[in-house]
Amino acid sequence: MVTRRSAHHQRMRRKRRHPLGTPPGTLTVSPEAHPTSVHVMGYGPAEWMERQLTREELQELPALARSWPVVWADVEGLADLEAVQKLGAVLGLHPLALEDVLNVPQRAKVEAYDGTLFLVAQLPSFSGNLRQEQISIFLTDGIVVTFQERPGDTLALLHERIRKRGGRVRDRGADYLAYAVLDLVVDSYFPVLEGMVERMEALEDAILTAPRRDLVADIHNVKHDVRVLRRAIWPLRDALNALLRDSFPHLTPDTRIYLRDCYDHVVLAMELLENLSELCADLLDMYMSSVSYRMNEVMKVLTIIATIFMPLSVIAGIYGMNFNTEVSPWNMPELNWAWGYPFALGMMALVAGGLLYYFWRKGWLWS
Amino acid sequence: MVTRRSAHHQRMRRKRRHPLGTPPGTLTVSPEAHPTSVHVMGYGPAEWMERQLTREELQELPALARSWPVVWADVEGLADLEAVQKLGAVLGLHPLALEDVLNVPQRAKVEAYDGTLFLVAQLPSFSGNLRQEQISIFLTDGIVVTFQERPGDTLALLHERIRKRGGRVRDRGADYLAYAVLDLVVDSYFPVLEGMVERMEALEDAILTAPRRDLVADIHNVKHDVRVLRRAIWPLRDALNALLRDSFPHLTPDTRIYLRDCYDHVVLAMELLENLSELCADLLDMYMSSVSYRMNEVMKVLTIIATIFMPLSVIAGIYGMNFNTEVSPWNMPELNWAWGYPFALGMMALVAGGLLYYFWRKGWLWS
Amino acid sequence: MVTRRSAHHQRMRRKRRHPLGTPPGTLTVSPEAHPTSVHVMGYGPAEWMERQLTREELQELPALARSWPVVWADVEGLADLEAVQKLGAVLGLHPLALEDVLNVPQRAKVEAYDGTLFLVAQLPSFSGNLRQEQISIFLTDGIVVTFQERPGDTLALLHERIRKRGGRVRDRGADYLAYAVLDLVVDSYFPVLEGMVERMEALEDAILTAPRRDLVADIHNVKHDVRVLRRAIWPLRDALNALLRDSFPHLTPDTRIYLRDCYDHVVLAMELLENLSELCADLLDMYMSSVSYRMNEVMKVLTIIATIFMPLSVIAGIYGMNFNTEVSPWNMPELNWAWGYPFALGMMALVAGGLLYYFWRKGWLWS
Amino acid sequence: MVTRRSAHHQRMRRKRRHPLGTPPGTLTVSPEAHPTSVHVMGYGPAEWMERQLTREELQELPALARSWPVVWADVEGLADLEAVQKLGAVLGLHPLALEDVLNVPQRAKVEAYDGTLFLVAQLPSFSGNLRQEQISIFLTDGIVVTFQERPGDTLALLHERIRKRGGRVRDRGADYLAYAVLDLVVDSYFPVLEGMVERMEALEDAILTAPRRDLVADIHNVKHDVRVLRRAIWPLRDALNALLRDSFPHLTPDTRIYLRDCYDHVVLAMELLENLSELCADLLDMYMSSVSYRMNEVMKVLTIIATIFMPLSVIAGIYGMNFNTEVSPWNMPELNWAWGYPFALGMMALVAGGLLYYFWRKGWLWS
Amino acid sequence: MVTRRSAHHQRMRRKRRHPLGTPPGTLTVSPEAHPTSVHVMGYGPAEWMERQLTREELQELPALARSWPVVWADVEGLADLEAVQKLGAVLGLHPLALEDVLNVPQRAKVEAYDGTLFLVAQLPSFSGNLRQEQISIFLTDGIVVTFQERPGDTLALLHERIRKRGGRVRDRGADYLAYAVLDLVVDSYFPVLEGMVERMEALEDAILTAPRRDLVADIHNVKHDVRVLRRAIWPLRDALNALLRDSFPHLTPDTRIYLRDCYDHVVLAMELLENLSELCADLLDMYMSSVSYRMNEVMKVLTIIATIFMPLSVIAGIYGMNFNTEVSPWNMPELNWAWGYPFALGMMALVAGGLLYYFWRKGWLWS
Repeated sequence: MVTRRSAHHQRMRRKRRHPLGTPPGTLTVSPEAHPTSVHVMGYGPAEWMERQLTREELQELPALARSWPVVWADVEGLADLEAVQKLGAVLGLHPLALEDVLNVPQRAKVEAYDGTLFLVAQLPSFSGNLRQEQISIFLTDGIVVTFQERPGDTLALLHERIRKRGGRVRDRGADYLAYAVLDLVVDSYFPVLEGMVERMEALEDAILTAPRRDLVADIHNVKHDVRVLRRAIWPLRDALNALLRDSFPHLTPDTRIYLRDCYDHVVLAMELLENLSELCADLLDMYMSSVSYRMNEVMKVLTIIATIFMPLSVIAGIYGMNFNTEVSPWNMPELNWAWGYPFALGMMALVAGGLLYYFWRKGWLWS
Repeated sequence: MVTRRSAHHQRMRRKRRHPLGTPPGTLTVSPEAHPTSVHVMGYGPAEWMERQLTREELQELPALARSWPVVWADVEGLADLEAVQKLGAVLGLHPLALEDVLNVPQRAKVEAYDGTLFLVAQLPSFSGNLRQEQISIFLTDGIVVTFQERPGDTLALLHERIRKRGGRVRDRGADYLAYAVLDLVVDSYFPVLEGMVERMEALEDAILTAPRRDLVADIHNVKHDVRVLRRAIWPLRDALNALLRDSFPHLTPDTRIYLRDCYDHVVLAMELLENLSELCADLLDMYMSSVSYRMNEVMKVLTIIATIFMPLSVIAGIYGMNFNTEVSPWNMPELNWAWGYPFALGMMALVAGGLLYYFWRKGWLWS
Repeated sequence: MVTRRSAHHQRMRRKRRHPLGTPPGTLTVSPEAHPTSVHVMGYGPAEWMERQLTREELQELPALARSWPVVWADVEGLADLEAVQKLGAVLGLHPLALEDVLNVPQRAKVEAYDGTLFLVAQLPSFSGNLRQEQISIFLTDGIVVTFQERPGDTLALLHERIRKRGGRVRDRGADYLAYAVLDLVVDSYFPVLEGMVERMEALEDAILTAPRRDLVADIHNVKHDVRVLRRAIWPLRDALNALLRDSFPHLTPDTRIYLRDCYDHVVLAMELLENLSELCADLLDMYMSSVSYRMNEVMKVLTIIATIFMPLSVIAGIYGMNFNTEVSPWNMPELNWAWGYPFALGMMALVAGGLLYYFWRKGWLWS
Repeated sequence: MVTRRSAHHQRMRRKRRHPLGTPPGTLTVSPEAHPTSVHVMGYGPAEWMERQLTREELQELPALARSWPVVWADVEGLADLEAVQKLGAVLGLHPLALEDVLNVPQRAKVEAYDGTLFLVAQLPSFSGNLRQEQISIFLTDGIVVTFQERPGDTLALLHERIRKRGGRVRDRGADYLAYAVLDLVVDSYFPVLEGMVERMEALEDAILTAPRRDLVADIHNVKHDVRVLRRAIWPLRDALNALLRDSFPHLTPDTRIYLRDCYDHVVLAMELLENLSELCADLLDMYMSSVSYRMNEVMKVLTIIATIFMPLSVIAGIYGMNFNTEVSPWNMPELNWAWGYPFALGMMALVAGGLLYYFWRKGWLWS
Repeated sequence: MVTRRSAHHQRMRRKRRHPLGTPPGTLTVSPEAHPTSVHVMGYGPAEWMERQLTREELQELPALARSWPVVWADVEGLADLEAVQKLGAVLGLHPLALEDVLNVPQRAKVEAYDGTLFLVAQLPSFSGNLRQEQISIFLTDGIVVTFQERPGDTLALLHERIRKRGGRVRDRGADYLAYAVLDLVVDSYFPVLEGMVERMEALEDAILTAPRRDLVADIHNVKHDVRVLRRAIWPLRDALNALLRDSFPHLTPDTRIYLRDCYDHVVLAMELLENLSELCADLLDMYMSSVSYRMNEVMKVLTIIATIFMPLSVIAGIYGMNFNTEVSPWNMPELNWAWGYPFALGMMALVAGGLLYYFWRKGWLWS
């Protein structure tokens, strides 16, 4: 249960960083935030460049944006409050949006602050327990800014695609880049979901072979992870839906077709989650019916044993009575029969055999 | 449980063919894909022709389309990536749509790419376990392209109808052909549903006669199949609803009336599925109440036996005590009675009879 | 369970009359269809006439329609395919609508084919088990055509009202006649629902007095009937709602007010059904808690008996031990006490009495 | 269970007064209807009058309406069919609306018949069992007609307010009077709901102290009443919502603000009902877990007793065996030990003590 | 259970202050209301002032509003009916709104009375048991009036922020002040939710270690608090949604962006509540499966003990039978064997050992 508990704690604790009464839009940095580094790429169909920017060099961004068709500033780690504020000032990002960037985790959402499109999504990963990292995306004219909580490999795949001219990203604008980041986030759900399917299959095997008690906790554990993912992906679907439905600045109709594809993937992931959630309920049902069944089995053993041995006990008890056989011929004449003992044992065998036959007929012996 | 597990695996595994980070719109072929063959029919009210096209002959399609009122290219098997790409290039199909064709299974959907209507649906079949095959349909001016995962008999029924001038299909345009394909897919759900009803009836009989333990797994198995079908048919309903509600190119009002009929069939299939799903829940209820009932029965047997034989045991035990009858007349005088033994046996018979009568009055003996 | 099973079978089997691949709009007749008879009435405020039409006389219908304000052709039995086709040709009914007429049962619906309003509804009846009969209604200028699966008494009530000038039907147009038919169908649900309430009350009594095992099957049986009716009445509500909301040809605003009343009745029937459905769930709950309670009672009897007689058995056993009293004064001196036997019996009585008192205090004896 | 059953019966029976086939709009009177009396008030800001009208005087109503700003005709009891018909004729009320007035109970609703607003609501009361009375309201120019099933105290509160110039009712129009009646009906739900809360608290106490078997029936009884109220109040909310949303004749914007307040009260009552409904489910849960817990307790007692006394029984049995001690020194030498008997008793005490200690450690003794 | 019961009572009782029939809009004061004090602040970007107003000084408010950009009148305690009426008269507040202010608790809502925006929300707090305090907010030109049920610390945080020029509140208008109050209310939900998470973790620990009986009541207790909060926060979300969606007077587009942020927080709190609600259900599941599991364990102990000792008892009983060994060699020759007693004991050991081995193989001994 450790995993599950700590996951909650984390979520609740991280959320309540501001003390009650802090003015809205106040930027504060979490003590566990990773150190910040800003990696900038500029590219067009023909060329590309990349460099790390220090906090001071951030004000060169507008100039870079003028010289490259698309500029992508990828911020890893959220510890450097000053750098984030400077980025916000240089590119005109709204303080409430920046608060959402730092104050992780937020629900996935899409918001338009005049001239800027702001997107938040959760990137899941699973290695032993489920983790989520917030990816925040700003899209303005020719500039995309992404914020990651931790340095990670996922967006690096996109850096590589830009360098190697993989896919269409070099030929298209900033909106396509923003889509490509979102698409990577959505695709990251699938390996995590696959991992959960495997955990469930292991649980199902365990339930069918030996329903140990801790399986209930394990099933609830998976159930909890399903819910965490569901809570991450439902608002993501709503956000993508808003992107498709409403008109936002900077989004070309062509990119919209790609976003529709991305939306389809989110819906597919949601369906898999629904499926997993229903399987969790099935597993609990199976566990409970397995426990009931075993109880039944135990009760049958008890009943069979008691039903067979109690009459035997009574027979033995009867011939252990001390009635004085010499007083009258009615007093336990069996005791003085030559075949008295075999007669008693035979009676016991008969009773036991008869009851066994009865149970066999009732189908209680082999089931 | 083998069926069920493998069904999942398949679904999840097949879905994750692309490694994370593959650019969207990349066409890749599944290693288990069937070899590709392209069968083309051209027809009008008066005449028809059909031929197999090799990969090279695919570029004759536009010419064929100009000489026949309706041309239907039926692609069976998805292994030949080059042929699919060529078809896409010749007819102007969108790469994202082609990705959906190859990257099976997709959710049923309808999408308009300028000039082309793209439809995806799942064709179910059941022989031992439930399978689904994706049918993808492109509808452009006078041309219908269908993609099947495997060579199959279902669309062959339509080929035959065209050859024999059955129904209205020869007298109508390409949109009616697309509808006829969809109608076949929808009608294919009914034999599968009938098969599930039969499985359920067998389960119901088994539960009422002998609630074996593996029935739970069987019920969950059916439940799983119901869910798989439901997940296939809900988006199909949405897609048909979109076809009826929105205005799409190439759809005549007359065909729309037929699509409404098709939509009614989908709704009927959904209702049957809901019914099956509720029956699954009923079966589980019945199983659990059957188990409870049997437990009760077992407990009653135990209680009756224990209640009858324990007092007998005590009576026998009493007369087996070794109090010295010679010390006083109060010490077990019964042992020296002439009728002591019959008295003891009689007492036992009385107690046993009395308790049996009590249980009979309580209605525990025959129930 | 026979009732329930066969009901399913019937529904599924009847639905699948066409083999897979039959062209849509193909009219076929069910082998169990009743023979067809066509009864025609023409009426106005002042006069009325009625006659049976043979298959050949059907073409006189348009002429009749011109000479009477309202003409009602009531077709009973669906076996005569030719007559149905002729009716369709004479009055211009759409082949898909005629397919729905013959291919019973359909979901209740309302559809407009240009110039004609087409309505389908299910007429329920209950005598031992639940049956449904499909009533199909066509409304065109001054003509109403109704199709019944079987000759029946329900629409005869309306014939009688027309003959006797009961209510407003003679003074109003064809749309009011169509409404009157629908109203009769809706009113037919109430006696059936009343019958189900009575079945449920009988079940409730049985559960409270003696929860036999087959009650579960009976409850599920009622549950199944509730679902069948629900599945009939939900689409009927949607159809009536569409009639009220959308503008259809041939419907006057005045008739619309009457349809609103009819809609209210459907909603009331639905509420009663919801109530019945919740009562079913309650009955199952009651049954299960009744079974649990009885289990508890059985366990209590067992525990009381075992707890009282086991110590007695041990006491008797102790004084049945064969320790040699002559070896030492410590070896079972009680055996040689003058009051040893009464002492032992007294001890037993004390133990038994004490335990009985304990159980009485715990409230296990009378509850 | 008497209460509950009869409540159903009543509802179903009363509903089915018309035989099947009765023309819609036919007015009939229930045999249990109360005698009719018509009480008329006319008032304005300055003056007011009131009188009882006989059936003949009803035609003076339009004249009264011309001489007073507001006229309120309050009809108590629905037995006098002629009076109702006359009222309908004099004020131009629609026959379908009058049918709804007489054919109680109807679902709460609001309907506009040209020139007239027609409202139906259920007035609940609880004294031992739940009763509902239908209040029907007609609002036309300056005239409000209310129909009550029985003479009652509730609307009398409003008469009194008019007489005493309490609140704003004298200063405002007929629409405010109609609102005031509705407001009284809505407020009547709260004392009934309070009563149900008290019943539930009593049930909760009973479950926690002694879960008797009939509590299940009692809980289902409350559940049933919750449902009856819910079925009364949901359509009332819809009706009020329609009043607020749609534009109706005779409703001034000012009254609309008061209706919004009334709507808030209905929503509050609905929330309380939802709460009560959830509490019912909680109570059933508690009952079941209480039963399970007691079962556990019973089983523990049985197990402890059996586990302690069975070994003792075996020890006593062993020393009751009749092996011949004289044949060999191996044959039950204990019987001839000087301390044999104390040794055997001690062994028993040791075994019993050890097992008690074991159970105490397991926490089974006090829990 | 004390907490829970009293919470209900309170809610229901407080609600029903007016007797049935009281005219709407009548202002009455609850007997438990706190004494009233009115604290007024006026501020602009540059300066601020604050003072307490007596009942008589309330009419200076309009003058104050003219001399300061924003004036905030914070009313603590609702006992002084006259002061509230005077405030209403001076600022033109609608009597129905004032009734809602006094008649606590109301559902959260937003309403526009011409020229005034009226907001109600519940401020939760938890110290031992859950309490809610109603905050009512009026927003007119440059004036914000807030009503609190009790003097409290929460709004004091905002007073302090105004004094110290914290955040943006001094630079903005009255609408921002109203938002800031709402934001404080919403933020107050989070510490309460955190406290509930801690209660739940304690319960989860208790269930996994020792499922005592009163845990069910505790879980239902938490469940009840979850529901109370949910019932407070759902309408708050609807109210905020209405604020964002509809156009209200006095709300600037800039403040609307902040309200969107506030709305996001409400949605987050709702998600946490949903999570808690699902955890409650999980805990009940766990408790029940824990109880079942323990029952199983108890049954196993009983069965093992009975199965082992019953056969031993029978063996001992057999050799305690009194058959006369001298009559024939078949009568219990074992009794005279030299090794008879060890043979019997050995047989017992063998039987016991064999059964223990059997149970060990079945996995019943250690599980």
